[in-house]
Amino acid sequence: MSGNTFGHLFSLTTFGESHGPALGGVVHGCPAGLHLDEAAVQQELDRRRPGQGKTSTPRRESDKVQLLSGIFEGVTTGTPIGFSIANENQRTSDYEAMRGIYRPGHADFTYMAKYGHRDHRGGGRSSGRETVSRVVGGAIAQVFLAQHNIQAQAYTQEFGGIQAETIAPDKAHELPYFAPDPSVVELWDKRVSEIKKAGDTLGGIVEIQIHGVPPGLGEPVFDKLDARLAAACMSVGAVKSVEIGCGRQAARLTGSENNEPPDPALTHRNNAGGILGGISNGAPIVLRAAVKPIPSIAQEQEVATAEKTLAPFTIGGRHDISAIPRIVPVLKAMALLTIADMLLLQRSARSEGSPPATV
Amino acid sequence: MSGNTFGHLFSLTTFGESHGPALGGVVHGCPAGLHLDEAAVQQELDRRRPGQGKTSTPRRESDKVQLLSGIFEGVTTGTPIGFSIANENQRTSDYEAMRGIYRPGHADFTYMAKYGHRDHRGGGRSSGRETVSRVVGGAIAQVFLAQHNIQAQAYTQEFGGIQAETIAPDKAHELPYFAPDPSVVELWDKRVSEIKKAGDTLGGIVEIQIHGVPPGLGEPVFDKLDARLAAACMSVGAVKSVEIGCGRQAARLTGSENNEPPDPALTHRNNAGGILGGISNGAPIVLRAAVKPIPSIAQEQEVATAEKTLAPFTIGGRHDISAIPRIVPVLKAMALLTIADMLLLQRSARSEGSPPATV
Amino acid sequence: MSGNTFGHLFSLTTFGESHGPALGGVVHGCPAGLHLDEAAVQQELDRRRPGQGKTSTPRRESDKVQLLSGIFEGVTTGTPIGFSIANENQRTSDYEAMRGIYRPGHADFTYMAKYGHRDHRGGGRSSGRETVSRVVGGAIAQVFLAQHNIQAQAYTQEFGGIQAETIAPDKAHELPYFAPDPSVVELWDKRVSEIKKAGDTLGGIVEIQIHGVPPGLGEPVFDKLDARLAAACMSVGAVKSVEIGCGRQAARLTGSENNEPPDPALTHRNNAGGILGGISNGAPIVLRAAVKPIPSIAQEQEVATAEKTLAPFTIGGRHDISAIPRIVPVLKAMALLTIADMLLLQRSARSEGSPPATV
Amino acid sequence: MSGNTFGHLFSLTTFGESHGPALGGVVHGCPAGLHLDEAAVQQELDRRRPGQGKTSTPRRESDKVQLLSGIFEGVTTGTPIGFSIANENQRTSDYEAMRGIYRPGHADFTYMAKYGHRDHRGGGRSSGRETVSRVVGGAIAQVFLAQHNIQAQAYTQEFGGIQAETIAPDKAHELPYFAPDPSVVELWDKRVSEIKKAGDTLGGIVEIQIHGVPPGLGEPVFDKLDARLAAACMSVGAVKSVEIGCGRQAARLTGSENNEPPDPALTHRNNAGGILGGISNGAPIVLRAAVKPIPSIAQEQEVATAEKTLAPFTIGGRHDISAIPRIVPVLKAMALLTIADMLLLQRSARSEGSPPATV
Repeated sequence: MSGNTFGHLFSLTTFGESHGPALGGVVHGCPAGLHLDEAAVQQELDRRRPGQGKTSTPRRESDKVQLLSGIFEGVTTGTPIGFSIANENQRTSDYEAMRGIYRPGHADFTYMAKYGHRDHRGGGRSSGRETVSRVVGGAIAQVFLAQHNIQAQAYTQEFGGIQAETIAPDKAHELPYFAPDPSVVELWDKRVSEIKKAGDTLGGIVEIQIHGVPPGLGEPVFDKLDARLAAACMSVGAVKSVEIGCGRQAARLTGSENNEPPDPALTHRNNAGGILGGISNGAPIVLRAAVKPIPSIAQEQEVATAEKTLAPFTIGGRHDISAIPRIVPVLKAMALLTIADMLLLQRSARSEGSPPATV
Repeated sequence: MSGNTFGHLFSLTTFGESHGPALGGVVHGCPAGLHLDEAAVQQELDRRRPGQGKTSTPRRESDKVQLLSGIFEGVTTGTPIGFSIANENQRTSDYEAMRGIYRPGHADFTYMAKYGHRDHRGGGRSSGRETVSRVVGGAIAQVFLAQHNIQAQAYTQEFGGIQAETIAPDKAHELPYFAPDPSVVELWDKRVSEIKKAGDTLGGIVEIQIHGVPPGLGEPVFDKLDARLAAACMSVGAVKSVEIGCGRQAARLTGSENNEPPDPALTHRNNAGGILGGISNGAPIVLRAAVKPIPSIAQEQEVATAEKTLAPFTIGGRHDISAIPRIVPVLKAMALLTIADMLLLQRSARSEGSPPATV
Repeated sequence: MSGNTFGHLFSLTTFGESHGPALGGVVHGCPAGLHLDEAAVQQELDRRRPGQGKTSTPRRESDKVQLLSGIFEGVTTGTPIGFSIANENQRTSDYEAMRGIYRPGHADFTYMAKYGHRDHRGGGRSSGRETVSRVVGGAIAQVFLAQHNIQAQAYTQEFGGIQAETIAPDKAHELPYFAPDPSVVELWDKRVSEIKKAGDTLGGIVEIQIHGVPPGLGEPVFDKLDARLAAACMSVGAVKSVEIGCGRQAARLTGSENNEPPDPALTHRNNAGGILGGISNGAPIVLRAAVKPIPSIAQEQEVATAEKTLAPFTIGGRHDISAIPRIVPVLKAMALLTIADMLLLQRSARSEGSPPATV
Repeated sequence: MSGNTFGHLFSLTTFGESHGPALGGVVHGCPAGLHLDEAAVQQELDRRRPGQGKTSTPRRESDKVQLLSGIFEGVTTGTPIGFSIANENQRTSDYEAMRGIYRPGHADFTYMAKYGHRDHRGGGRSSGRETVSRVVGGAIAQVFLAQHNIQAQAYTQEFGGIQAETIAPDKAHELPYFAPDPSVVELWDKRVSEIKKAGDTLGGIVEIQIHGVPPGLGEPVFDKLDARLAAACMSVGAVKSVEIGCGRQAARLTGSENNEPPDPALTHRNNAGGILGGISNGAPIVLRAAVKPIPSIAQEQEVATAEKTLAPFTIGGRHDISAIPRIVPVLKAMALLTIADMLLLQRSARSEGSPPATV
């Protein structure tokens, strides 16, 4: 309950820091009877692996997941699926200089304020490395949801201020940056080259579409589907805003501009992003997360010290120049975990136990 | 757990529909020993009351809260605070025509999909009327937080596409629209007159600042303070995006532009909005919610029917022309409830039971 | 989460003290589509009403429940069912003398230790009066479970040290003391007359049978069905032990004496009480709760004072001479709430959403 | 939430089956700043290790715990403590004959009913082997509670129908059977020899005392301290009853016999077992759990088959002849986990954040 578990019925509990022996977690509530093999989980994990593409750190982790329980003869048993991923290739000495300082944009200062004791090596629990466990959980959710013909697509809609002009999400997972438009890759490559030269970093916007979600998912009032998705995405380190459907733009529309009949069979637009009153209507779920630039830049910066002074500091170690694209499979995983949980919650909505009918 | 409870330690559970006998709820976990009188709670409730201002429906509800438990001799006992607010002045006949139709932008269709049975009179549980219970909960949180010198201010930053030029939040609660800038009120009045004439409705953007939050609030990974605030705001009916600090804009900044030392005593900007790694750093918490236009417009629209056809329909009844300004105290309440919960959670962060020290 | 909510999916949240304006609660997660009328709920409530039978206080409360939400046209909507029961006929002056003293066997002392502030009038939140809300919740669960052909019977197995010789639970709800054996009533009446004369009070043992529970209910490890039932019963004020099946007696059996084939279709005894490995096997669930004597006796006793001294004191007011029989419908309600929750949880056990099959 | 997590603030989540690659779990909410070394945890684990004493299976597992996160430089960081224990020395072939049969007293039948798919090798998730993770969690709770001068003692009060005559719990952890009385050991040894010869198994009663618990722990109504302890103990496989204080015996006392002043400073007995109204009063917490005999006996028995017939069957493999004494450290762990959680919850009971005062 203290922040390490996501979800009610289909839930993920995680542990692990960037520089401890291992990270891992437990998926609870994955229904019994599901064919699940480690390779399918590993494939998702490989998509967020460091050392791939132009934006990524040369730090290489093999990031091999080991499933420890909950599966028998290749099929889930309904009991919790424990898993772990070993930490390798740590160069602890890289971080020793950071013991007494609090870096800009990182959680060094706030963890110290919260706990009075922290692992200063590269972020500890607040490191992006924590997200490996999310991807494992999301991969298991993906297998479950595939049974129900629910799929998610995640891609980079905007990177370094440059938007993709067309959105063709089907091929995004094969393109650099998870780009939804092959023609934008060259522009983004150029932006990366510039920013690397400047010793700086970039942010961007990730869009997620979830297809096949039946109408009826989401719980009234506090566990609305959009509220849960917002928390899911905002819980990922670098995310600073979440939008559903036409999102922020809705504030500038009039009712007559924004309205559309609620039944997606009768509707051509999808301003609502597939959610009305916090409950899915059967249209694709569409959401976007804005990702801030990685705070570990190669330039000298001012940091805060334990003595409450400013000091010039150049962060060592190996760092990505953007959370994009590695954050893309993480956000997809969070969306999948949310939908899986809501799908199971929906099973108790009606008194006869009938599956949710299309209206 | 099924979506009607918000929070872990300081929590609010609500019930009630727009057209049932009463709405209400239970505040759990409000610490004992707090002076709490009904008048303080009623004052907050009065701020979201219908029948005030130019954007509001003429429907008048006195919205008197009755506290039913948890207080003895004016002081909280630590036991749950039950409360109820009677529904008055219902004109059920206004809604009879809506039995067979699903309105644009409302939850009629999705509730039917979810439950197979719904109260068609004005939204039922999905009605904005549900938010009275949130405001009561928020008012109790406000009394608790005042003890810790934590205050929230909420105001309309943008309305109908027109932004407030200056932000002076101290007086906003006394101005129409909870405007942070007296000079914008005339422009917004003009916009309202136009839109009323057109039989249309408006959206806008609400900003919240929370002052006095100590460093250390928020739980790593899934219950980050920003994740909880995002869910809190997105759980309010009309909200389509939530941003923290510089929000969506962060996606277009470089690391060197966005970075700042994490100790607010040493920092002049507040790009992070008071939250780093999901944990408060002691700077003011700043967040924004985009509010869509009210879907009940006075014009004839196409609605969906139970027979899966489109039909022209003019929604009767009395409706606001914007969720602004009545949504402003609701969003403030949600932010306060979030902070109150996180403040109590923080009490278990350290082994000696010491309060969180400033770093 | 702070102790006022019972259950995960089918859950009950309560509020209220013995001497506040009202008690009440919220039932969350009752599935939509269930016919539910107030009269059915009131009937259960009437079974725990004071002023009935020989053991009961002359204090009379009409204890009328009002359902405030979640029902439309006589059918549940899936949204929370709020309810309240007004407190009447309070004679606050009866309790004024108890402000500075802590009674034996009551929670006066421990609430003061916990909260530093308490409502001294008759127990406040710790009063048995709190259980009215449990009975309302249980009555709603009963309606839900009846749909699934699940029924509970609760009766007094032993009272004042005198056991019922035969157990015929079907008629128990019509007999004094909810006696399972008409012939024991006279003995129990005699015991009551004696104990009243002595100014003393009695305890006893309540047994519950739940019929029709399908195999498969209960969650492995921490939410085993027996663990949940134990917590459910032990959470009722006067209960000091809970046993499942042959219970305490199992400690003295050998494996060969205790064992029986796990399939109830093939089994003649039910030592296990219908639960194996924490999961129902389809046999009747059988459990017993030992109820301590009411601590408010008519004799002068030694009480503790706020000054940490002993003082002689005679408790005034009107008190039952046993929690039996009024606790019987309360324990039944708790058992029903547990089963209802577990039945909904079971809906997510399997990947295809199929209902639990008989093995 | 699906039964694999125990506790709210100080909580334990577990995974693992008897015959999978590993068992393990996550302790959430252990406060930061606590000195914690693996050796202290291993010591508790060694107390439940198989292959010790006369009642135990010759199956030997080294049961080495590995702590994977949440500790930095020997001190807890406030982040989750992940851990794992490898399964070794599995002889899967021993269990192959059990694929199509459901053993008496085991969860084979009920897991099949629940999930439709199960790991038939030795119980899987329902195996007593699952309790290694509980002991690890309890050991961490023990370190936390030691800081607050809270200690638990657990011992066998009765075994095979033979009670210990005197209770000297201090030395029990050094004696066979965790006996509280050295003189009973010989009697119990004799009982074990007899029962082994008969190919049968035994049960018994475990008593737990918890010293140093401050007054004020426990949450009113549903999370009463006794309710939580009852669930904690009943969630352990073989437990069939739980009693608090004088327990079942209370049903036969009168009020005047059972009553005592609630302040333990003024009281000589402890009928209440340290809990009044569900809240600790500062006296030692006393509880007892009745443990059924191990169902895997060496005799031929009738088992149920998947074809719904009875069949004679002799269970192979290596089995203990009683859950006692290995269940003793498991029950102690559950009690410690409960108290740790309640201690953290108590930190939010009062508005000023003051520690609970002695009344």
